[in-house]
Amino acid sequence: MLQSKLFYKTTKEISEEEKSINAQLLVRAGFVDKLMAGVYSFLPLGLRVLEKIKKVIREEMNAIGGQEILMPALTPKENWMKTGRWDTIDVLFKMEGSGGKEYALGSTHEEIVTPLVKKMVNSYKDLPVAVYQIQDKFRDEPRAKSGLLRGREFSMKDLYSFHADETDLDSYYEKAKGAYLKVFRRLGLDALVVLASGGTFSKYSHEFQVLTESGEDMIFYCEKCRYAQNKEIAEYGAGDKCPKCDGKMLEGKAIEVGNIFKLKTKFSEAFDLNFLDKEGKKKLAVMGCYGIGPSRVMGAIVEVSHDERGIIWPAEVAPFDVHLIALFGKDEGKNKKIEKEAEGLLESLQKAGFEVLYDDREEVSAGVKFGESDLFGIPLRLVISEKTLEKSSVEIKERAEQRVELVKFNKVEKFLKK
Amino acid sequence: MLQSKLFYKTTKEISEEEKSINAQLLVRAGFVDKLMAGVYSFLPLGLRVLEKIKKVIREEMNAIGGQEILMPALTPKENWMKTGRWDTIDVLFKMEGSGGKEYALGSTHEEIVTPLVKKMVNSYKDLPVAVYQIQDKFRDEPRAKSGLLRGREFSMKDLYSFHADETDLDSYYEKAKGAYLKVFRRLGLDALVVLASGGTFSKYSHEFQVLTESGEDMIFYCEKCRYAQNKEIAEYGAGDKCPKCDGKMLEGKAIEVGNIFKLKTKFSEAFDLNFLDKEGKKKLAVMGCYGIGPSRVMGAIVEVSHDERGIIWPAEVAPFDVHLIALFGKDEGKNKKIEKEAEGLLESLQKAGFEVLYDDREEVSAGVKFGESDLFGIPLRLVISEKTLEKSSVEIKERAEQRVELVKFNKVEKFLKK
Repeated sequence: MLQSKLFYKTTKEISEEEKSINAQLLVRAGFVDKLMAGVYSFLPLGLRVLEKIKKVIREEMNAIGGQEILMPALTPKENWMKTGRWDTIDVLFKMEGSGGKEYALGSTHEEIVTPLVKKMVNSYKDLPVAVYQIQDKFRDEPRAKSGLLRGREFSMKDLYSFHADETDLDSYYEKAKGAYLKVFRRLGLDALVVLASGGTFSKYSHEFQVLTESGEDMIFYCEKCRYAQNKEIAEYGAGDKCPKCDGKMLEGKAIEVGNIFKLKTKFSEAFDLNFLDKEGKKKLAVMGCYGIGPSRVMGAIVEVSHDERGIIWPAEVAPFDVHLIALFGKDEGKNKKIEKEAEGLLESLQKAGFEVLYDDREEVSAGVKFGESDLFGIPLRLVISEKTLEKSSVEIKERAEQRVELVKFNKVEKFLKK
Repeated sequence: MLQSKLFYKTTKEISEEEKSINAQLLVRAGFVDKLMAGVYSFLPLGLRVLEKIKKVIREEMNAIGGQEILMPALTPKENWMKTGRWDTIDVLFKMEGSGGKEYALGSTHEEIVTPLVKKMVNSYKDLPVAVYQIQDKFRDEPRAKSGLLRGREFSMKDLYSFHADETDLDSYYEKAKGAYLKVFRRLGLDALVVLASGGTFSKYSHEFQVLTESGEDMIFYCEKCRYAQNKEIAEYGAGDKCPKCDGKMLEGKAIEVGNIFKLKTKFSEAFDLNFLDKEGKKKLAVMGCYGIGPSRVMGAIVEVSHDERGIIWPAEVAPFDVHLIALFGKDEGKNKKIEKEAEGLLESLQKAGFEVLYDDREEVSAGVKFGESDLFGIPLRLVISEKTLEKSSVEIKERAEQRVELVKFNKVEKFLKK
């Protein structure tokens, strides 16, 4: 991608109402644009990151037998009346359409997925089933703030599993927990598994929390074995001995990046999702649900992975692998050579499978180019200038490191593959 | 993918209210599920098709310099008031949220993209710009019918282009027209470019129409040079001489699968999207917009490509390339051998890059398996049975053909790559 053609604009000042670090950096770097409180457009750089996050999640959901589907955002009131949640979910966006038909915009999809799965399941042989979708959800947050962390419209991956009994649910639940930890590891997030309230469904659920000062949740966690509880249900306080090992419990702020719930039969009861067991007896299916918000995860990554100069993307979700920068001077002849070498490198790197953003702009200063590069947070920066050209070399710097290395043109590919 | 695990259910009867062929076949084959009139869930098979359609569209939009972004579905009333369309778009879904804030669900995105692009454009050097998104749109259709052809929630690709003058718009408009024709060719749709009303923006726009008896539009088209006009604006009637050649104009029903518009300065005026031209003078940017609905296209493909037994997918958008079917008998020993050969073939085909749905079910009859295979419409059917096993062969049949060929196990890959 040529940076001269890229649809973006970096900016130094951003609106005062943007308090969160993730929104400040993502808006400043031209990854997202704020349409209104809690609602953002994703620009090309931001959409690339979002899609890569979704890809990681998809791969790990497929690995535990999840099958991708896509349910609508527009959902009929009747379904929400069946569970009573039309009146109890206070952030539900409600709407009346033509003919007086009432709708809710999906803030979650148990009311849709349960009757859908009911159509496919007759016998214990049809279970277990696990389906997921990645789709925009809507919540009428009275005070949307925190950038991508708490939106009115946000991307959500929701997986639902259906089982013949609780034992099978329990075993899938542990599998999903493992898959979630893999997702967060690949996304560069050090997530703690935190015991939390099970709401009206179960005694407990589990949240995946990332420690950071900007977090909205308070958790207690063991410094040694990482056992953790959400403060809302905590039986232990800061300084207490860990109930699982001889470590000490610490208190910390954290961002919730995922949660998993045992819904048991709450929704299968509401929609009469039953099946015939081995003995031919009617039984209710047992459900679990598992959520990760890709846009929220994107915000969380920025919160924990940045410095004073900008974002530092983990390799797997960076918008590009390499930011190739050509620095042009006043000598037309040398500029031609710089351009030629840069274009050659661009081509060979792309052929080798690297995704490269090439800053080909002629009238932009080195200072501005480096500033934008740091703001973007692409893992590797390669610079070709008059100076490096003299040594038939490229200057290579990792975004997160200070060290700069000079690497010969013909060694660059090998160097990057190290 | 193992068919025994696939989340689907085929059905013979479907609801009487489902009148359109596309909805009947897609529901019967387990590709989509109807949540309510005009609103469908995409099941694994259907989502695979939808994503492949989107991929083709993405590739052709990128090829003409379109950059992908993603705008929200939730949009603020203010933007729609600026263009006056809050009151004039009768199918706009409107909603009041907490704090009395009013929203519309995007039925189109000129009101969002124009102020967004305004932030990026200062000078003629920042033009042209072309951005697109693929996203769900919403229309409060009083009588949603026709399955995926006219929905209340539907997938839409909308591209918007911004230019310094009309000449540049005109040339990009022709480029986009070419890209659209490529898209439809790849999707197996024989689309006519049809002159249509330009609405309030321009004298004319162009629609891409596919002739079929189930179409809701009426067009006149030249039997020879394919020049066409929508009946709504037509200057020629059936039997008239074509204005472009010596052919004759015919009348036909057609489905609109795409449309392109010159918006000119209607929206740049409303949002004051101007730029400084070469002489330093302020000018309004000139806009075009270009739409294709991936879900509507999916419905259109089914309308024109099916027979009495089911869907016939064009290769590029089929949910799988190959439907491999194992037919088991009563002999356990032979069944083991059939299974072994089928699994071997599955693995080698997948390694060779084919996407394979493997019908591994033991207790299902050949009749049911063949019936479902025809309904699914996967381009190639491979059958391994006791009979073919004796000849170390596989029975291969193209969905759209009657002919069955017996091909040796070790020749299958080569045969498929022909």
